[in-house]
Amino acid sequence: MVNKVKKDDTVVLIDQSYKKYIINVNGKIDKYKGVGVFDPSTLIGKKYGKQLLIGSKQFWILSPSLKDKLQCIKRRAQIILPRDAAHIIMNCSIEPGYTVLEAGIGSGSLTIALANFVAQKGKVISYDIREDFIKHTIKNLKMAKIEDFVETKIKDITKGIDEKELDAIILDIPNPWDAVEHAWKALKTGGYLCSYSPLISQLEKTVKEIKKYSFIEVKTFENIQRKMVVSEQGTRPSFQMLGHTGYLTFARKVL
Amino acid sequence: MVNKVKKDDTVVLIDQSYKKYIINVNGKIDKYKGVGVFDPSTLIGKKYGKQLLIGSKQFWILSPSLKDKLQCIKRRAQIILPRDAAHIIMNCSIEPGYTVLEAGIGSGSLTIALANFVAQKGKVISYDIREDFIKHTIKNLKMAKIEDFVETKIKDITKGIDEKELDAIILDIPNPWDAVEHAWKALKTGGYLCSYSPLISQLEKTVKEIKKYSFIEVKTFENIQRKMVVSEQGTRPSFQMLGHTGYLTFARKVL
Amino acid sequence: MVNKVKKDDTVVLIDQSYKKYIINVNGKIDKYKGVGVFDPSTLIGKKYGKQLLIGSKQFWILSPSLKDKLQCIKRRAQIILPRDAAHIIMNCSIEPGYTVLEAGIGSGSLTIALANFVAQKGKVISYDIREDFIKHTIKNLKMAKIEDFVETKIKDITKGIDEKELDAIILDIPNPWDAVEHAWKALKTGGYLCSYSPLISQLEKTVKEIKKYSFIEVKTFENIQRKMVVSEQGTRPSFQMLGHTGYLTFARKVL
Amino acid sequence: MVNKVKKDDTVVLIDQSYKKYIINVNGKIDKYKGVGVFDPSTLIGKKYGKQLLIGSKQFWILSPSLKDKLQCIKRRAQIILPRDAAHIIMNCSIEPGYTVLEAGIGSGSLTIALANFVAQKGKVISYDIREDFIKHTIKNLKMAKIEDFVETKIKDITKGIDEKELDAIILDIPNPWDAVEHAWKALKTGGYLCSYSPLISQLEKTVKEIKKYSFIEVKTFENIQRKMVVSEQGTRPSFQMLGHTGYLTFARKVL
Repeated sequence: MVNKVKKDDTVVLIDQSYKKYIINVNGKIDKYKGVGVFDPSTLIGKKYGKQLLIGSKQFWILSPSLKDKLQCIKRRAQIILPRDAAHIIMNCSIEPGYTVLEAGIGSGSLTIALANFVAQKGKVISYDIREDFIKHTIKNLKMAKIEDFVETKIKDITKGIDEKELDAIILDIPNPWDAVEHAWKALKTGGYLCSYSPLISQLEKTVKEIKKYSFIEVKTFENIQRKMVVSEQGTRPSFQMLGHTGYLTFARKVL
Repeated sequence: MVNKVKKDDTVVLIDQSYKKYIINVNGKIDKYKGVGVFDPSTLIGKKYGKQLLIGSKQFWILSPSLKDKLQCIKRRAQIILPRDAAHIIMNCSIEPGYTVLEAGIGSGSLTIALANFVAQKGKVISYDIREDFIKHTIKNLKMAKIEDFVETKIKDITKGIDEKELDAIILDIPNPWDAVEHAWKALKTGGYLCSYSPLISQLEKTVKEIKKYSFIEVKTFENIQRKMVVSEQGTRPSFQMLGHTGYLTFARKVL
Repeated sequence: MVNKVKKDDTVVLIDQSYKKYIINVNGKIDKYKGVGVFDPSTLIGKKYGKQLLIGSKQFWILSPSLKDKLQCIKRRAQIILPRDAAHIIMNCSIEPGYTVLEAGIGSGSLTIALANFVAQKGKVISYDIREDFIKHTIKNLKMAKIEDFVETKIKDITKGIDEKELDAIILDIPNPWDAVEHAWKALKTGGYLCSYSPLISQLEKTVKEIKKYSFIEVKTFENIQRKMVVSEQGTRPSFQMLGHTGYLTFARKVL
Repeated sequence: MVNKVKKDDTVVLIDQSYKKYIINVNGKIDKYKGVGVFDPSTLIGKKYGKQLLIGSKQFWILSPSLKDKLQCIKRRAQIILPRDAAHIIMNCSIEPGYTVLEAGIGSGSLTIALANFVAQKGKVISYDIREDFIKHTIKNLKMAKIEDFVETKIKDITKGIDEKELDAIILDIPNPWDAVEHAWKALKTGGYLCSYSPLISQLEKTVKEIKKYSFIEVKTFENIQRKMVVSEQGTRPSFQMLGHTGYLTFARKVL
């Protein structure tokens, strides 16, 4: 089966160093960052999976995957990396159809990952106190074609949560401990609370606050990822490595 | 809203050291491992989220989450841990509705995680050369109530793949390199191949084989997870730590 | 050159799982832990490096190395592992001939390592508030034949330091911050302070206290070590791993 | 006791970002890298430990420590970092007075560390096949004032070792397995062999070769070090981290 690019498709162009650019095929002739000036409609009829020349550069053309979308996010705030999003999704036991609340929205990295897994029937509700962050993120959500499954609110989660019976709540705010009581009330029985924090004092205060409420399975961990380099000379771990992202704390509501 | 256990529910009982037991409420009076002899129907009408006394032990009673199911698997083979399953799901860009192939089936740990995220419209196809492993795993799938979304086959993936246009293929076999060519053919354009291997020689041979075919974004990494201990005395990383699980190699099909 | 065991030697017996027993050749017939009842004088004339049968077990017989001594310590308190001792010695720029102060003495693990590197002209001064710990450690120092280069004192380092112009001071006490001012006064210009602490709050308070005095090059790190398993099947990191020992903080006195 | 810089001293100047410059006080007026044009004799009479202005920059002036020397090495080849040197020294049970052989010499980083610990009575013998590396390293040894305890040889260790009864041999060459037999012969009974290799295939081949000879306590490990950041905001692991240096293999000669 050969798939070809059609009129209303959104595609990802991947260059030879695997930099990625998500392009709407019926967009107008314009200067596209990393690609140059070109007319997206010229992509119509091209075979997915093939490399093609645009300007002076070769690009593979593919249908955007979750990873493509996450890698094409325009960042304003520090983002939650896909690797940490993966742990959040697993440890919060996310299922398609779930209703999940996150605060704050950041640049929408975790939002997109969550929406990917709860769609089509589920929903992500995303609070942020800054309207500009929300507006910025909505562009990323549209790029990822996932905006229908996300509801945004300009709201401070430490002041309260409107929703009830939430399947999971994820906190990526400077003072997660101030949202713990609200989170307990808003979660369904058996629902998961997650907090992502770079600082040790943050996880410490959050864990202490969590222990005041009926939560079980309280745990905190950090994840370290290391690439392996496989070359003609041999195999070894990569010298480049990110030493830290954030600590992940999880807890589960009981009565 | 108060939820109570009903006649046909499956519940998870969680003891005070967070050991978990998934129980079918309309099962018969029997000796249940970790719980003792009891009549599951006595659970009917109990409030979800409450702790209750069964025999001489206290258990919280909850509706089973993905993590509960993964932690209740009966193991025969070495399992892929939830943390590695999380990375596989993220890096293969799994979406609800996808059709995903895995080989071998192991004890069904990855199978359950994959099925959780592709259900209801998607499907996991699982090959294994050993019928006894498949039979054993089907019990775990039934425990997880996920068996409708999994198709098992007694089949050696290194001999060929029946399916076409697969969204992702995950290899957890001793000789993944022997399945790479078949995987390339069976994947959709843009689909992901993943291989999980504990040994360095395995990842090395697999990467070399992958490089013979039209795959891009080939990368291998390992994930290390460390718990944090938060106590009255202070906070520190846990002394207990698993030093290694397996290397994860990913690649993506192009033409 | 063939070396044979002589009358006044101290030897290490190493069994096939590399457990080690340091034995004084002119000790009396006795029950030796891990070896059984035997007469040490029967070792006289044996070739160093050879395996020999004692009771029903095979032992290699060698002259004790620093690592042998460290591995034969009888523990009462938690010890500083050789790997951390190595970092302390390097980052305190220890040289033969130096005078180094440590507090507390623990079971003498760091004491022996330090004494090994400062002997013959240098000296380790070791404070501990508990006489029983000092007495216990002196036995370990004698086993390591290093007692001539160690001076012990029943003394609380947070109450003051008798010595002046010390080359380095190493703190392994619950409240290292209380010794920082005394340490600054007792160090030579350019001398190093080190603090070893398992808890994050300990390193935090210590670093904050250090910053009140004229110290430069203040840094804290943790060391993680992972064994590699090389077998017929292939090579991989070990599953067994110690997740944490302690944080090492270093600082250097200026005026 | 106040120490002042004297006529024949070698000093280390440390700027405010802790960059270091080792300077011979009776050197001539010249342009010194990182310091600028100045006359070293103007340092005479300055107090050690004080900060002073040279040109437009502030420098602390201290007597050079081992760490200062290691950080001031001029690099040509990739160096063995102080942290790995520390593990080598500990796991080879180096003692003052020992005679230790290394090959190759690199830029002299390990050479200086070893010489620091075996001096004054001991000696480091250093083989390298490249005369230019040896010449370059000798400059670093002179900077570290340790050249009297190092003997260099233009020699390929895989062709044989002249010395006998060596206390330890450290290999930092591309093909360490080719030196294993020679190393066994040249070591004293109970002496340690160490090999430092970045690639997994190197450690694998070396371990396999080591197992052909009478060595015990064969082990390989890697060391990972992570800095902690302690600031006003809180404490966390550093984002910057070196993912890999090299694998360290150790073995001990028996008969």
